[in-house]
Parts: sequence; structure tokens; C-alpha cells
Amino acid sequence: GVAADRLASRIAEHAEIGATPDGGVCRLALSDADRDGRDRLVAWMHELGLVVQVDRIGNIFGTRAGREPGAAPVMTGSHLDTVATGGRYDGVYGVMAALEAMRRLDELGLVTRRPIVVAAFSNEEGVRYQPDMMGSLVHAGGLALQTALDTVGIDGSRLGDELARIGYAGDLAVGAIRPHAFVELHIEQGPVLEAEGLAIGAVADLQGISWQEITVEGQSNHAGTTPMRLRRDAGAAAAEVAVFVRELALRFGEPQVATVGRLRLNPDLINVIPARATLTVDLRHTDEARLQQAEAELASFLEGLAAERGLTVSSRRLARFEPVVFDERLVRTIEAAAAARGYGVRRMTSGAGHDAQMLARVCPAAMIFVPSAGGLSHNPREHTPAEQLAQGANVLLDVLRRLAG
Amino acid sequence: GVAADRLASRIAEHAEIGATPDGGVCRLALSDADRDGRDRLVAWMHELGLVVQVDRIGNIFGTRAGREPGAAPVMTGSHLDTVATGGRYDGVYGVMAALEAMRRLDELGLVTRRPIVVAAFSNEEGVRYQPDMMGSLVHAGGLALQTALDTVGIDGSRLGDELARIGYAGDLAVGAIRPHAFVELHIEQGPVLEAEGLAIGAVADLQGISWQEITVEGQSNHAGTTPMRLRRDAGAAAAEVAVFVRELALRFGEPQVATVGRLRLNPDLINVIPARATLTVDLRHTDEARLQQAEAELASFLEGLAAERGLTVSSRRLARFEPVVFDERLVRTIEAAAAARGYGVRRMTSGAGHDAQMLARVCPAAMIFVPSAGGLSHNPREHTPAEQLAQGANVLLDVLRRLAG
Ligand SMILES: NC(=O)NCCC(=O)O
Ligand SMILES: NC(=O)NCCC(=O)O
Repeated sequence: GVAADRLASRIAEHAEIGATPDGGVCRLALSDADRDGRDRLVAWMHELGLVVQVDRIGNIFGTRAGREPGAAPVMTGSHLDTVATGGRYDGVYGVMAALEAMRRLDELGLVTRRPIVVAAFSNEEGVRYQPDMMGSLVHAGGLALQTALDTVGIDGSRLGDELARIGYAGDLAVGAIRPHAFVELHIEQGPVLEAEGLAIGAVADLQGISWQEITVEGQSNHAGTTPMRLRRDAGAAAAEVAVFVRELALRFGEPQVATVGRLRLNPDLINVIPARATLTVDLRHTDEARLQQAEAELASFLEGLAAERGLTVSSRRLARFEPVVFDERLVRTIEAAAAARGYGVRRMTSGAGHDAQMLARVCPAAMIFVPSAGGLSHNPREHTPAEQLAQGANVLLDVLRRLAG
Repeated sequence: GVAADRLASRIAEHAEIGATPDGGVCRLALSDADRDGRDRLVAWMHELGLVVQVDRIGNIFGTRAGREPGAAPVMTGSHLDTVATGGRYDGVYGVMAALEAMRRLDELGLVTRRPIVVAAFSNEEGVRYQPDMMGSLVHAGGLALQTALDTVGIDGSRLGDELARIGYAGDLAVGAIRPHAFVELHIEQGPVLEAEGLAIGAVADLQGISWQEITVEGQSNHAGTTPMRLRRDAGAAAAEVAVFVRELALRFGEPQVATVGRLRLNPDLINVIPARATLTVDLRHTDEARLQQAEAELASFLEGLAAERGLTVSSRRLARFEPVVFDERLVRTIEAAAAARGYGVRRMTSGAGHDAQMLARVCPAAMIFVPSAGGLSHNPREHTPAEQLAQGANVLLDVLRRLAG
């Protein structure tokens, strides 16, 4: 199997790039820290003798040659970007474990029939630029390159400008590498595996994701002199939206989730009724029909609120992905590989979005999960013990060997 | 009477200082714009031959001599600072009208028995530094000078440092000038006078004000993978607080008002459950017992919310003033002066806080209101027609003459 210590120390070393004082990582897509993280990856790819290519959306591909030159490659990998208050494992684990697997193949003197490509996709988190999984989405042909490059981020920057600035606007055509299969190793980011004492999740499907930004426009006025009945309070309405979506999720029941992650008031002053509020709503469900129903209920709630309160309410779609079902054979391959090593394994659904769901549009794809301590992710205290990281990497290694022949 | 054009043009000229593109004014307390606004006032005071003094909290006093040197002065005035998205009249109108009244007395060749002091108090708005009405509160002995100077603002600045930086840390002892009476002219900032077609409000009392900052601490986690039942979502809880206080105000009925003017999430990212939320709650009522009941209901709601959701909720008092009743004789003097000029007048309550309520602690005090178009204030479109501004200034002139003898 892989070397647990080596993998853990690589992850720790990479976590120094964009490290935050609370032990987490801030490596927003296409920031300076993202560039530094990419540079480190490319250096390590070169050390392993991989052939490195960067495409026009900044996806990085390191290819280990196979015995059969013309054969479609097996692809693995994940992403290096993090949310602003992220942990050390989300994304980077899958990339570092893939490198460790390549190193292990070298040590074993193994050359597979198919080439193996280690990929790091651009802007998976979708925090700075929406939608999420953007690099893999462009790779899979689900979003036009130019549209992606023209995306304006929450800081007002243009994605294409930032990509050029950090030196990762590559010249490989997007989608040029057509994989035979794609497998992604990732932390679970949820509570299931830990709660059930299992080492490995064989991810069979992913939730649909609906992201929208809602803007409420009312009228600023004096907090002391304006009677409640005369107010057009954008902030109070935004708060009702947040309460509504939470209650909708509770009413729909699991696995429905709903989150208001961002909320800004304008002017945001203690004694001024807010004139404008902007908030994001993240809705997810495994069932597309339920997700559509949640969206429809929210839309009609917004309409009623606008009418009742004399407000203007508008909504802008930031991301929308239907639920994805992974390749059944590949899921079984993962289950079998885990079982062969004696690891406890179960099939599961991913609550998070992943690059693998975009690759699933162009080739058989599936994912391997390892437990997240306390179910914590998108949190500086995100953690998975080194032994469990190595178990996941072992399953990845075995699956890659089987797929690459 | 006063010269309506002259008054209007002075207000317009002063509104250029800190002017915003939308026609409003941003002159936050002790900012560069506040300094420029003060400098302009001091120059105009000198033009009128007033003796200018600045006290240790930055209050500016311009004194017009009286016939009887030892007599306690009559004081009038208001403030020059604005909220960040303020209008052209809130505060500055009362100061400019007082200057116009002095000029009119000069033109009439009148020297009153008592001196008349035109005051501009520091940080009335309370937006950058809490509490509001801080300069007049310190003047009235309700807040220790050092505590005021040590106040940390929403931008992290220390009030005393900013006061020194803009050159308005004066050497007059706070509270040194003990007035015989205080009268403040101000725009209503509410809808009452306009709705009733009246020119003048004789303000008989003011609402109590309760300001607090509430901090909710939960746990950030992944928006997609964390089931609703396992969330400790600080943002969702903050939204419930905002909804609760609005519903409380509706339940209590008028004149209860409740406002969440500021609300910040941390980390404020689309797919991260907020770890922390900070919001302000502004509660006001004319009846102290009702105000205390509102505070108590909010406190018990917060306690229940914290327990139910596994959150830590803390509250910090930013300002607390009981309702104030103005001097009955002075209110009658204002009513009589308005009536004598044939202006429609009514007694009323102020929904906003004012420097006069602090001066009421040390001398007879009352206020004169003029209408606010559309009831708008703390809004760039705050407006009062020049004729109505002049009517208010006429009443001020007459009341000052009567008080100063
Ligand atoms: N895996 C992961 O955290 N992806 C980010 C996109 C999302 O699911 O919010
Ligand atoms: N008059 C006025 O707007 N004062 C500011 C303090 C407040 O009442 O919020």
C-alpha cells in the first residue's frame, strides 16, 4: 500500500500555503495562495516525471505514461482551491493521494497499460466565482470557456484576468484529454462514515445543487421615527427568507438542506432601516423533483413577500446542477477494492458537489470517501487521521491499477 | 423673520461637505468630512462675531454676548455629523438656523439680556461610535469624558484619537457652559406633520432608546453535507432574531418600533454554514415599562434560541436612554410663538434621539420640528422645502428672543 507518513507530510506541507492562524487554509481560487499551491503541485509532478499540461481554464494535468500509447487515460484528482475558512483536506487530499499512488507505482516498478492522469481542477469551491466545479464543468463541455473566463467574482475581479495574472491561463484546449474513466478520492465532509465506524464510502450519487443570489430592495429610513406599518425594510425581509428556507428544509425532511451562507445589508447602520439586502440561498436534494419543488416554493414566497411589504425582490441563478448517478460498475469496483483490503465500506450519497460529477458527463466516474472527524468541513478544524487518509489512498491505488490495467 | 433664501443657501453650501453622488451627505462623526463641516461652521461663527470655544469632547460653542454679563446663556443648536447615507437637513438645519437667527438679531440691532450660545455637539448620530448623542451626553454629565474618548468605533478607531486627529480636541472643560434653557430646531424625520398639513411641531417628549449588539456563535460546516438537525447555524439564528423583534413591535403596537440595522455573517460564504453572526437591535418606545418589557422578551427569546440550537448568544448594550419629557413651559412658549405667526402647530413626540434630551438633564429644554417630505430621514432623499425651513427658523428666533430677554 501507500506510505501513510509520506502522504500525511505532503498534505501538511501543502497546507502551509495559505495557512490561517486557526490551523485552516485560505486558498481562494486564482488568488496568490492558489498560484503558490499550484506551483508546488507542478514541481512535485515534475519530480515524479509526469508530463504537465495546463488548459485554458487553468486545469492542471500530470500524465504518467502507459504501455499502450494510444489508449485513453484513466484520470484521477480533485482540486487545490479552498473556501476562505477552509480546512487542510477538502480537495488537496485527492490530489496528494493521487501523487502518492503514482510514486507507489514507481516504487513497484509498475507501468500500466493506460496512461494515468493526475488532475487538479480550477475553482471547485465556487466561493469566489460561481458556479462551483467550474474547471471540471468547462472540461466536460457544460460551460463555455469564454463565459467562464468572463465570470465576475464576489470581489469584482474577472476570472480570466486573475487566471492570467497567476500564470495559469494554459494553452491546452479545454476537454482535450478524454478519459477512459475518472475516479476521485475525497474526504466525506459529513458525519456518516464516522458515525458508522466505516473506513470507506463508495459514492454512488450526488445531490442536485441550486444556488441563487436574492436581492431585496426597499427604502432606507429612520429607525426611530418610522412606524412599522410604513417601513419597506429590506433587511427584515431578507431575514424572513432565511427563516423560510430553513423551515422549508425541515418540512421537506432529509436529505433536503437549505443554507443562507452570505447576507449583506446596505447601508448596514444601527439606526437606519436597510434599503437593500443581498443573500445567497443554497438548496440541495438527491431528488430533482423535490429540488424543483423547493425552488418553486421559495419563488412564490419571495413573490408574496415583495407584494406584502412593498419591496422589489429579484433572484439571480449562480449555479444549478441536477443530481448525478455515478457509474455502477465503477462503484462496485471501489466497493470490491475496499473489501479486498478488509476495510469497512458502504455505498453513499455525496452532499457536496465534486469535480467527479462533471467528469461523469464524459466518462464512467465515481468517488471514494474517507471519514471526516466530527462531520466537519468548510471549517479550519476539518480533520481526518493519517491512517484513514492512507486507507483511502490504498483503495484509490488499487482502483487505478484495475482501471489502467 | 429670517431670510429664507439665505438659510437655504447656507444649508446647501454646507451639504457640499461630504456630499454623495445620490444627493445625500456622508459626514460620519470625527471623519475628515466632519472636520471640514466643523471648520466651515467655525468660520461662519467668526463672521458673525461669535466667541468660539471647543470643549474636550469636541462640542463647538459660539457665543453672542448679552447685555447682562453674568447671566446664564440661552443655548440652541444641534449637530453636524450624519449617518453614512444621510440627508442634508438632519442636525445641520438646527445649527444653520441658529446662525441665521443670530444674523437676524444683528440686522435688527438687538442685544438680548442673556448671551445666546450656538452649539454643535459631537457624534449625535451614534453610527460610527455608540452611544448616540454622545457630545451632549458628556456635556450633561451623563457619560465620563474618558469613557467617551476611549470608545472604539465600528471601524476599530478610538474616538479620542480621531478627535485629536481632526483638531477638535478642545480645552474647554466639558459642561463648563451651564445654560439657562436649551431649544433645538430639527426636522421631524417622520411622517406626522406632513400628513396633518402642519408647519410646526412643539416636541413635548422623546421615546426611550435601547440599542444592543447581539453576537451569535455557532459552528461553520459544509452547506451541502451537514443535515439540518446537526447544524449550529449562527446566521439562521440571527435571522430569527430579526424576525422576532419585528413581530414583537407589531404585537406591542405603536409607538413600539424595532430595527435590525446592522447584520454581519462570518465567514459570509455561499456554501459555508455561518459560524458567527453579529447584529444590532434598536428598540424604542415612549413608555419605559413597555421598553423594558420588550428588552426582557428579547432576552428570553435569545436564551431559548441559544439552548434550542446549541449556540452561544451574547448581548452588549450600546446605548440606553429612558424616555424624556421636555419642559412644559418651554413647550408652551414654542406653541405660542408658532401660533403668533399663524403657523399650524401641534404637540408631538420625537421618535428620534436628540441632543436636547441630554440638555434636559441640566436645564429646561424643548424642541421645534418642521415637516420631513415623505417622512424620509437617514436617507439621501431627506427633504424639507425652504419655506418650511424658514418657518421653523422664525419660531426659533422668536423663542430665543423671549428666553434671552
Ligand atoms: N466538495 C466541496 O466542498 N465542493 C464545494 C462545492 C459545494 O458542494 O458547495
Ligand atoms: N435625530 C437623529 O437622527 N438622531 C440620531 C440618533 C437616533 O435617534 O438614532
